[in-house]
Amino acid sequence: MKTDEKLVVLRQMMTSQQIAALIVPSADPHQSEYVTGHWQARAWLTGFTGSAGVAVVTRTHALLWTDFRYWLQAGSQIRGSEFELVKSGEPGVLEFHDWILRNLSPKDTVAVDGRVISRNQEKKYRKLWNTRQILFRTDLDFVEKAWQDRPPMPVTKTWDFPVRFAGQSRSDKIAKIREAMAESGADHHVMTGLEDIAWALNLRGSDAPGNPVNIAFVLVDMDQVRLFIHPDKVDQDLAAVLGKDNIQLSGYHDIFDTLKKLPDQAGVLLDPDMVSAGLFAAINPDCRIIEAMNPAARFKTRKNNTQIGHLRNTAVKDGVAVVQFLHWLDTQEFEDRVTEISAAHKLFELRKNQKDFVENSFNPIMACGEHSAMCHYSAAKDTDARLQNTGMFLTDSGGNYLTGTTDITRTICLGSPTPQQITDYTLVLKGHIAVATACFPEGTRGFQIDTLARQFLWRQGMNFGHGTGHGVGFFLCVHEGPARISPHPVDVALEKGMLMTNEPGLYREGEYGIRLENMVLVTDACQTQFGRFLGFENLTWCHFERELVDISLLTGAEIAWINQYHGQVFESLSPYLEPSVRSWLESRTRPL
Amino acid sequence: MKTDEKLVVLRQMMTSQQIAALIVPSADPHQSEYVTGHWQARAWLTGFTGSAGVAVVTRTHALLWTDFRYWLQAGSQIRGSEFELVKSGEPGVLEFHDWILRNLSPKDTVAVDGRVISRNQEKKYRKLWNTRQILFRTDLDFVEKAWQDRPPMPVTKTWDFPVRFAGQSRSDKIAKIREAMAESGADHHVMTGLEDIAWALNLRGSDAPGNPVNIAFVLVDMDQVRLFIHPDKVDQDLAAVLGKDNIQLSGYHDIFDTLKKLPDQAGVLLDPDMVSAGLFAAINPDCRIIEAMNPAARFKTRKNNTQIGHLRNTAVKDGVAVVQFLHWLDTQEFEDRVTEISAAHKLFELRKNQKDFVENSFNPIMACGEHSAMCHYSAAKDTDARLQNTGMFLTDSGGNYLTGTTDITRTICLGSPTPQQITDYTLVLKGHIAVATACFPEGTRGFQIDTLARQFLWRQGMNFGHGTGHGVGFFLCVHEGPARISPHPVDVALEKGMLMTNEPGLYREGEYGIRLENMVLVTDACQTQFGRFLGFENLTWCHFERELVDISLLTGAEIAWINQYHGQVFESLSPYLEPSVRSWLESRTRPL
Repeated sequence: MKTDEKLVVLRQMMTSQQIAALIVPSADPHQSEYVTGHWQARAWLTGFTGSAGVAVVTRTHALLWTDFRYWLQAGSQIRGSEFELVKSGEPGVLEFHDWILRNLSPKDTVAVDGRVISRNQEKKYRKLWNTRQILFRTDLDFVEKAWQDRPPMPVTKTWDFPVRFAGQSRSDKIAKIREAMAESGADHHVMTGLEDIAWALNLRGSDAPGNPVNIAFVLVDMDQVRLFIHPDKVDQDLAAVLGKDNIQLSGYHDIFDTLKKLPDQAGVLLDPDMVSAGLFAAINPDCRIIEAMNPAARFKTRKNNTQIGHLRNTAVKDGVAVVQFLHWLDTQEFEDRVTEISAAHKLFELRKNQKDFVENSFNPIMACGEHSAMCHYSAAKDTDARLQNTGMFLTDSGGNYLTGTTDITRTICLGSPTPQQITDYTLVLKGHIAVATACFPEGTRGFQIDTLARQFLWRQGMNFGHGTGHGVGFFLCVHEGPARISPHPVDVALEKGMLMTNEPGLYREGEYGIRLENMVLVTDACQTQFGRFLGFENLTWCHFERELVDISLLTGAEIAWINQYHGQVFESLSPYLEPSVRSWLESRTRPL
Repeated sequence: MKTDEKLVVLRQMMTSQQIAALIVPSADPHQSEYVTGHWQARAWLTGFTGSAGVAVVTRTHALLWTDFRYWLQAGSQIRGSEFELVKSGEPGVLEFHDWILRNLSPKDTVAVDGRVISRNQEKKYRKLWNTRQILFRTDLDFVEKAWQDRPPMPVTKTWDFPVRFAGQSRSDKIAKIREAMAESGADHHVMTGLEDIAWALNLRGSDAPGNPVNIAFVLVDMDQVRLFIHPDKVDQDLAAVLGKDNIQLSGYHDIFDTLKKLPDQAGVLLDPDMVSAGLFAAINPDCRIIEAMNPAARFKTRKNNTQIGHLRNTAVKDGVAVVQFLHWLDTQEFEDRVTEISAAHKLFELRKNQKDFVENSFNPIMACGEHSAMCHYSAAKDTDARLQNTGMFLTDSGGNYLTGTTDITRTICLGSPTPQQITDYTLVLKGHIAVATACFPEGTRGFQIDTLARQFLWRQGMNFGHGTGHGVGFFLCVHEGPARISPHPVDVALEKGMLMTNEPGLYREGEYGIRLENMVLVTDACQTQFGRFLGFENLTWCHFERELVDISLLTGAEIAWINQYHGQVFESLSPYLEPSVRSWLESRTRPL
């Protein structure tokens, strides 16, 4: 069916249920960042396949909201249908919830499938629309009836993630979760986040692209853990292993019924940003709801000593692959057709050679020339560019190893750099060094560190349009909240053991972009009369581009940092490099 | 009555109403920062007179929570009574709401006078205590019945603040407030903040210490403004002037009844952090509540061109007074008894000489030696120290002029500085300069700027325990939110026209403290392809201490900034200084 035919079907359903506006997101019941095909409802309806965007259908309108990253793609993909693009984030443009507030009438009803929005989103929209007496229903699912040939839910094999990688047993993790529940006055806890569940039960799978998780729900009480999961995903051996820790299995959809039958006065700990409106509505109304961040979400960000040991080794393995790739790029003639996509494939092959590599942690970004200025660029068949002996080339990639997840970005010049490219690269590198060498008191949050990366660019009236860093999971999702290093006022302190990225950049539209990214581990720095101070340990080994650095813009301390870092890059990687690459790396890491 | 006798009376009332815990704050119905005697209930009950702290009385306990600034004072003032001090903020110590959660039983009832806590506080405590089925009543007022000889509410004269100072008429301000109400879908707006009311109606008074405001409530609808105020405060002439803008008068307490009688379906805009629980409960339940920051609170932070012109002149007037004071200190023999209190009086006398000076904007902090290490120190008769020819001296003071409010801190050495004092002073000054010269994109919030002030201290394992800056009112309160430059994630952008302080410091307990504070105005900096950038214009003229600066720790740019700033100090102030002070200032401002 084409989009406009789908709209006819949906509008018939809306009329029969007296629904004035239908919201269709591409979201799953787990607030996942990347959503599998089964839940890509907005993409099914509109044709727009970007990772962020929501459709709203009324009797008279079909509108698609998405942000600046996707305006071109969305405009192109919805062309020919009734859908109109709304440029979310553009000054003066209403967000969808405000558009609904302005354009519906009192007593009109808005509907969405409550299982794909969070409880907090539901409350926020209900409260907003209530100011104009617009009603909100979350109990209707039109999409399921209208969607022919809907992709099924993935049902990949669930497997045990060994303790020798995880560093902590599942029974110990569950005990810590129960302690946190008790402290909050709860005796039950609903988990919906797929990474939280994977971490807590030491399980992995392949249900999500680039993220080794299983689609499931979990209910913890003080006696047992119940895992709600498709029965075909868990074989008998694994079921027996889980049974030893009193982890029992139920069907994936059975959670709704189980929540209805929770005992009266049960104290249920849940995160209203993670639990869907539909799931929340299912809970026995005589339960006491205790709202807090999932204990697992907090615990998994603090990497234990086993994981940290693995991450140090993984930094070497991943560094070897990236250096081999950069050497290969440097020795290419480029009459040989190297394109953004073929370069990505080459780097993937080099990572595959490394022990315990499983898959890429995300779709690699290989962007040359003006593509590198689009900081969310991803090469596709119709945009794939050939690398030439000129211009900047940005490569942002990472691996998911059993021994940890990596994320690294380097920017090189394929020809001779211009003075502006050198100045830009140097200012970005200064910001990177300021973060890498930061010393900060216990309790400091990422938004306090973010400015250190930007200050040298700001002075020149320049800035970059993304955060300085995100948390990273351990053989989980490359984007792991809640801590961030960004302008957003996320009130989460950077704690010892957290693994973050350090990735400032600079993007000149139509020309080129630069980004320099390492991973950093939060560690102890010092203890003084003023308190306990933390800093960062570097967990990425790869040189920076000496010919893009203007030494006259660096302080003595910054030059010393680069030379020391480069020395460590060579020391750590050279034992694993073949002679030609080793001597190439030696020249790249000689003192400035 | 002594404290323990008051406890007997309160406990009798609690028993008769079946109240298990009574909360007694020192707070007024307007969320004011400084509370007049009439509402200092916790001080009446416990004897503890500090600006922050809350008492909780149960059948078996009498507890006083206050933070580290006041532990010594509180411990001393409650001695001999049943009250015990609880050290709020100490690791492991429960806040009062958590103590109540842990120590009361299901079905117990907590009570507070709902008129002295905010609506949001009420919601937060109710939700927390509900998890253990502890009930919460906000409709009982035991304090009024128990408090013999309660100071009456202040009833000072209300006067018109002329437009030639305010820069904008009250009718224009009310029109802008009505625009904002309409945008939010409201037709009514409740104002409780005394500074918001003073700003909106261009009225001033003397009902609060150091803050020229009137105790009142305001209700705005699309037709008229109703001012709820003690009738004795507004004479006939002023009533007639207000009547021209359809501002009508009612009794101060009449607001409760008026809110009960609002029309059904009225849309009421209010800030639940500013409106009390008691006031909120009075609103006709058939009204629609629209929660948002008071429009006046947003508007008053952006100073208009008239105010900015005045502030530039006020910076000169205030600078003259402070420089005269520092000169006087420098030429004192100190065998003449100069104490912290007499020094404060001298500076007050010098400010009084300046045109349009009304009163101090806050109790001046004059702190010598180890007193300066206590960043919240305030000299009292029993702590007043004599200035000697040795040690550091910190002076933090300000004036409320019809032409603006000022706040300035300087630190000097009364003897010969040690190397550590010089290094500390220089690191604080570097942080001050980093903020003064900051360039940042439109939309930047204060928490992104705060780190610039701390970075040089952090690198040495040092920090200061307060924010870098606060907003300042215009002939209003010296502390004006919501914008702040601090580690707190206050999600309010620094906008053009905001007046802030820039006041990093360093405090070595038992030794000395340093703070260097100027006022800065947010201004345009530049516009580039990366967007619009803002910066700060300096609005304080007073030299820094050249003998406390270690030039070897400064960059060339920092030295240039100091020399340029000192040059402007001399240029701006010298026309108004007598010859001896002028030549003294010339020597203090010579290029480093």
